[in-house]
Amino acid sequence: MSTAVSPLAPKSLTPMPVIDGVRLATASAGIKYKGRTDVMMMIFDEPAAVAGVFTRSRCPSAPVDFCRANLSNGTAKVLVVNSGNANAFTGKKGKEATTLTAETAAAAAGCGTGDVYLASTGVIGEPLDASKFAGVLADMAGQAKPDFWQDAAKAIMTTDTYPKVATRGATIDGVSVTLNGMAKGAGMIAPDMATMLSFIATDAAIAAPALQAMLSEGVGESFNAITIDSDTSTSDTVLVFATGKAPGQDRVTEPDDPRLDDFRAALHALMKDLALQIVRDGEGARKMVTVNVTGAESDRAAFEIARSIANSPLVKTAVAGEDANWGRVVMAVGKAGEKADRDRLAIWFGDIRVAFQGERDPDYSEEHASAVMRQDEITIRADLGIGDGQATVYTCDLTKEYVAINGDYRS
Amino acid sequence: MSTAVSPLAPKSLTPMPVIDGVRLATASAGIKYKGRTDVMMMIFDEPAAVAGVFTRSRCPSAPVDFCRANLSNGTAKVLVVNSGNANAFTGKKGKEATTLTAETAAAAAGCGTGDVYLASTGVIGEPLDASKFAGVLADMAGQAKPDFWQDAAKAIMTTDTYPKVATRGATIDGVSVTLNGMAKGAGMIAPDMATMLSFIATDAAIAAPALQAMLSEGVGESFNAITIDSDTSTSDTVLVFATGKAPGQDRVTEPDDPRLDDFRAALHALMKDLALQIVRDGEGARKMVTVNVTGAESDRAAFEIARSIANSPLVKTAVAGEDANWGRVVMAVGKAGEKADRDRLAIWFGDIRVAFQGERDPDYSEEHASAVMRQDEITIRADLGIGDGQATVYTCDLTKEYVAINGDYRS
Repeated sequence: MSTAVSPLAPKSLTPMPVIDGVRLATASAGIKYKGRTDVMMMIFDEPAAVAGVFTRSRCPSAPVDFCRANLSNGTAKVLVVNSGNANAFTGKKGKEATTLTAETAAAAAGCGTGDVYLASTGVIGEPLDASKFAGVLADMAGQAKPDFWQDAAKAIMTTDTYPKVATRGATIDGVSVTLNGMAKGAGMIAPDMATMLSFIATDAAIAAPALQAMLSEGVGESFNAITIDSDTSTSDTVLVFATGKAPGQDRVTEPDDPRLDDFRAALHALMKDLALQIVRDGEGARKMVTVNVTGAESDRAAFEIARSIANSPLVKTAVAGEDANWGRVVMAVGKAGEKADRDRLAIWFGDIRVAFQGERDPDYSEEHASAVMRQDEITIRADLGIGDGQATVYTCDLTKEYVAINGDYRS
Repeated sequence: MSTAVSPLAPKSLTPMPVIDGVRLATASAGIKYKGRTDVMMMIFDEPAAVAGVFTRSRCPSAPVDFCRANLSNGTAKVLVVNSGNANAFTGKKGKEATTLTAETAAAAAGCGTGDVYLASTGVIGEPLDASKFAGVLADMAGQAKPDFWQDAAKAIMTTDTYPKVATRGATIDGVSVTLNGMAKGAGMIAPDMATMLSFIATDAAIAAPALQAMLSEGVGESFNAITIDSDTSTSDTVLVFATGKAPGQDRVTEPDDPRLDDFRAALHALMKDLALQIVRDGEGARKMVTVNVTGAESDRAAFEIARSIANSPLVKTAVAGEDANWGRVVMAVGKAGEKADRDRLAIWFGDIRVAFQGERDPDYSEEHASAVMRQDEITIRADLGIGDGQATVYTCDLTKEYVAINGDYRS
């Protein structure tokens, strides 16, 4: 298994400011491997407003169930994330492990279990020994510090080849606020799952319902617009915490309050930044692909078509082979099941239009199209020519390395 | 590119009987490569009843359009199939090429273009020079002979590693009839499409509407129940021709006539036989996988779940790696979007139950499960435990060879 950093990784790690009211810690609890940093805690000096979105999988993990149940309380005091074990498909024992972890975390943070949030990533189906947390969580609560974002991001990695952090600033009613985020996902070892986790904290003072509205609005064009291999995890989790500690910023409660406009934009930009970092770490990835669909019957149809292209093994292997194979893009448009008129379809690779009015472009140049395909970042655009619907989905190529990572290693 | 025969291929080629009223011929028209046998003709002494099913792609090829338009006529005099060029996404030129081919075939067979059927497989987007057929079709019509099924099956191959034929016998009203079929698909070279084509002929006397009903009933558990890589071609075509030449067999007109029961069973068995041969020739395939889903909310839901498992890159790479990774099967069940209760889910690899009541089976043995995974043919079963719905989908593993075949070769 290659441990080389993805060729698409950012050139350097982003320096992260602190978020008032947020402290972080990491520890080695020996969940799967001894000596490996496998637990991360984010603890809030005072209960923070919380919002979350989770996998739509019909077989969600125990921690996902737990978080969903707590979300209506609207406040969070502590988040505990472990790698090494997803605590998914672990039946009653899994639920008990979650309960035990939550009780231990609540005791460490000085709150009730209703203010605890959990996430786990790693092996599916192995019971999680929650007693391993018992020895570390209290210490972590005491040692957690504000200036620890990059270390925390490293602790939640499973086979990511680099830690994923991002930061944005925004203004609410003239007051400067900061948003920090971390994410993990798309790096994989066999037999573990590609679980996507992302945690965002801000010092802004925003009520939970407004936070939830902005989070839910933003996933469509960020975390839900990426695909590595179409395999949706049992455990995907995105949580946003707002501590309200930004000096002099009056708490905003309504989702449509215009004072939130700048914050909303910053939050969505942060989410997209993290989501694209996940794509760049797709296992075996060497090329990042942006799929734009325009002219579809509706935005929803455009999204389905974009996803069809982004999930097509034939399109993705062609990208890996630097093959300007637009015929496969046609195929993927056709198979999406959305309204299409073959004779109005046009396709571009980068700025090169390769197909127009239902056939190969008269000015088609194999040389120019191939030059586009040799880049690290490629845009594929399909215009359906039948409406105004548009959407963008991000993915990466499908390489032998992906197969090696996911098939060569026995559980 | 490997030209080795699939390790899953049948041990020997099936001897094929003749079908009364059906003659076959092949030729080299130089469609893409000089000297390559790339045209196949099936000609009927007298117009045969015809039925067909085609790709649901929203970007179908010109030959698919052509066949669909003719189907309501209900009779066929000649079928012409070419490899080397799919005549797909070729705009107006493609339509003209189809018309020209049809006129040439009609002249050669002595019929109108309304009784001509066409199929093409190969490169998408390249204009097809239909004038190349002009030189061969008349000769083919004259030289076509009844005892030529295996050669005909070879002529429609693109990168299949073996020709696919099958035969069945049936009885209608005490009269013996024969069904012969050929198919191609799932072998691929870059940048060509994996188009699935299948042509079945019988000497039975059956009216077109009844033939169509039986064909349409049968695709669900045969050609539509297979997936190599989830990429639905622009050109998939299945055609059934009934010459009515079986001695003394009175023509059956009604789809639900009980005299057709045995024939229907034979036709469906033949379709399934050919469909499974296609799976066994999946590019890079080394393992054949049968995915059974039971206990789902409905048969439709079971099919969606089975397809989700069969299309999952993570499940397929695990199979390639002989890894008894049932956690990924859980993930694939969850992502299908159908009703599921994680805590009632049970999973088997072969006869080994690996997960039960929502968690790893208490009797789970890594050794036994791995032994199952080392076989060439593997069954994965998921029981949802919430209803009576069931379905079966067939697929193959996902290997580096697949990526090599589809990514390593430039167009």
